[in-house]
Amino acid sequence: MSTFWTDTVTRLTPYVPGEQRSGENIIKLNTNENPYPPTPAVMQAVSALSGDQLRRYPDPESVELRKALAAYHGLDVNQVFVGNGSDEILALAFLAYFTNNKALQFPDISYSFYPVYCDLYGIEARTIALEADYTLELDRFEANAGGIVFPNPNAPTAIDVTLSAIRALLERHTQQVMLVDEAYADFGAHSAIELIGEFPNLLVSHTFSKGRSLAGLRLGVAFGHPQLIEGLQRVKNSFNSYPVDAFAQVAGIASVQDEAYYRSTVDTIIQTRNQTVTELQQRGFEVLPSTANFVFARVPQTAGAQSATALFNTLSDAGVLVRHWQKPRLDQWLRISIGTPDDMRSLMHCLDA
Amino acid sequence: MSTFWTDTVTRLTPYVPGEQRSGENIIKLNTNENPYPPTPAVMQAVSALSGDQLRRYPDPESVELRKALAAYHGLDVNQVFVGNGSDEILALAFLAYFTNNKALQFPDISYSFYPVYCDLYGIEARTIALEADYTLELDRFEANAGGIVFPNPNAPTAIDVTLSAIRALLERHTQQVMLVDEAYADFGAHSAIELIGEFPNLLVSHTFSKGRSLAGLRLGVAFGHPQLIEGLQRVKNSFNSYPVDAFAQVAGIASVQDEAYYRSTVDTIIQTRNQTVTELQQRGFEVLPSTANFVFARVPQTAGAQSATALFNTLSDAGVLVRHWQKPRLDQWLRISIGTPDDMRSLMHCLDA
Repeated sequence: MSTFWTDTVTRLTPYVPGEQRSGENIIKLNTNENPYPPTPAVMQAVSALSGDQLRRYPDPESVELRKALAAYHGLDVNQVFVGNGSDEILALAFLAYFTNNKALQFPDISYSFYPVYCDLYGIEARTIALEADYTLELDRFEANAGGIVFPNPNAPTAIDVTLSAIRALLERHTQQVMLVDEAYADFGAHSAIELIGEFPNLLVSHTFSKGRSLAGLRLGVAFGHPQLIEGLQRVKNSFNSYPVDAFAQVAGIASVQDEAYYRSTVDTIIQTRNQTVTELQQRGFEVLPSTANFVFARVPQTAGAQSATALFNTLSDAGVLVRHWQKPRLDQWLRISIGTPDDMRSLMHCLDA
Repeated sequence: MSTFWTDTVTRLTPYVPGEQRSGENIIKLNTNENPYPPTPAVMQAVSALSGDQLRRYPDPESVELRKALAAYHGLDVNQVFVGNGSDEILALAFLAYFTNNKALQFPDISYSFYPVYCDLYGIEARTIALEADYTLELDRFEANAGGIVFPNPNAPTAIDVTLSAIRALLERHTQQVMLVDEAYADFGAHSAIELIGEFPNLLVSHTFSKGRSLAGLRLGVAFGHPQLIEGLQRVKNSFNSYPVDAFAQVAGIASVQDEAYYRSTVDTIIQTRNQTVTELQQRGFEVLPSTANFVFARVPQTAGAQSATALFNTLSDAGVLVRHWQKPRLDQWLRISIGTPDDMRSLMHCLDA
């Protein structure tokens, strides 16, 4: 607290990322990182950069990277925007599209950065309750309010919605922007990118942090109608002209161009996830259906079983980090990122001990 | 223009960076880049990063980099904040400290991003006119208005103000934040960092893009009282938790730790600048006293001489890029970045032709 803080700074409750503890024997299943390194082509591209390229400003519009992403998704370059991680893209999109003096709608159990952005910009937040089974019923969103944002699949539930449900909502909600946050869509959800051509108010965000193993790089993408993309560019160029550095631009291209590596990594994680679900269920956990690189699991409710809080602490003491929230409807659950098969075996050994 | 743009997006006039034309024979003296590459230690540090480090989120608080900067400047780590370029730091600082419903004061001829931030956040801008000789008279700032921001040295004039003048202003202006933007202070201006301990409302910003030859990396720094730094952290963690990627964190440390290389590069640029001033004066230019890595020069006003616009175009056609503004008091001037001695010889040959 300081007398120099504005009311905005004082009232903020900043986002808290998962613990970044490191060490020899830590099994880190708490921040949904990819357990596999990025394609070796990334470090080759980065190491090939010269000092002469570093002393110059990077391309402020990241045109070559956006071209590579456009080609990958069958889009035009003016339908693609890149930023310093998908969090920056969300921050810019909220400022660009949701500061319209109307309420922004998002699920009550969802990415916890959404209410933080609302607080930062003074946007009224209207939350939509998940159903009893933790699914998101898109019919509950009010059409043509100030805007809609939801992750697909949702976090921390890992449950996705269908493309037909998204289409139906877009057909009703036409006057404001709808942002589908596909941070975890690499692992099985159906992307809404294919609807961009039909719906000029649809913005879809992606990240390089999950399927592409580049959380350390900070690279996010938004896809949408050229006028939506131009709006993001206008805000970006009024905030920070060069958010994507020279390393991230070449590394992003190298990643996009190695499809075989990406598919192989993602497929391995999906297999490990399915195995993990089975093993957790065998141990009495209820596991929500996941299309993400994490599972949301309810600790066994049998007499004598540890509470989620106790189990979280037991695992943490054993060096296995997962995520737990002391919140209504979440407090008996753990969010567990999918690691390597070895990581998951260590988790199961801890659970059995 | 789009029906989905908010009023904010529609009213913005984004910042326009200098042209990033590239090619074999281009002499690029238009964006104040360093003509020398960064220390080789930077690429060594970057190339040593493993895929395992890239797949993980970077330290959201960049503690090791901030420790290196704190040690370099004789500060505590909680007096140091880092961001994705000094533009991001300015953007966060304006949001943190100047959205207080009072007018923000800055020079009328200054960094053209300041009015853009005001527009983005709805901050009232009050400009202070430079004197007839283009110096900034700090006495003209009203004490205890909504805040003060100015570059030292100023851009595009390259003229600095003294530390005693800054101290005198801080003694009068105690109720709101004063931000001294030292993007170009590597090249001779007296840094205000040494006043941080005395004045809890003083924030000083630096960049790695100029003296440290790392414009491609996007790394900026702010120094101030721990409570001011905490305010920036609160806004940062409500906007984008991880703005500084893994490459930038290790590269920044490598740069800070190679003082000999930094000093040698900066000293060479200062020598070239002094030589350039002499040669421009010999050709009839009026050159303002520069403590930056650029000079601001008025084209000869003699009969038959080219106007600044014509000369700008002539130079551009010859592949020598400088910066020119079609604005009152600036339109007869060119801003010329200091390149290598060879770059400056090429400029002089073009001027003589």
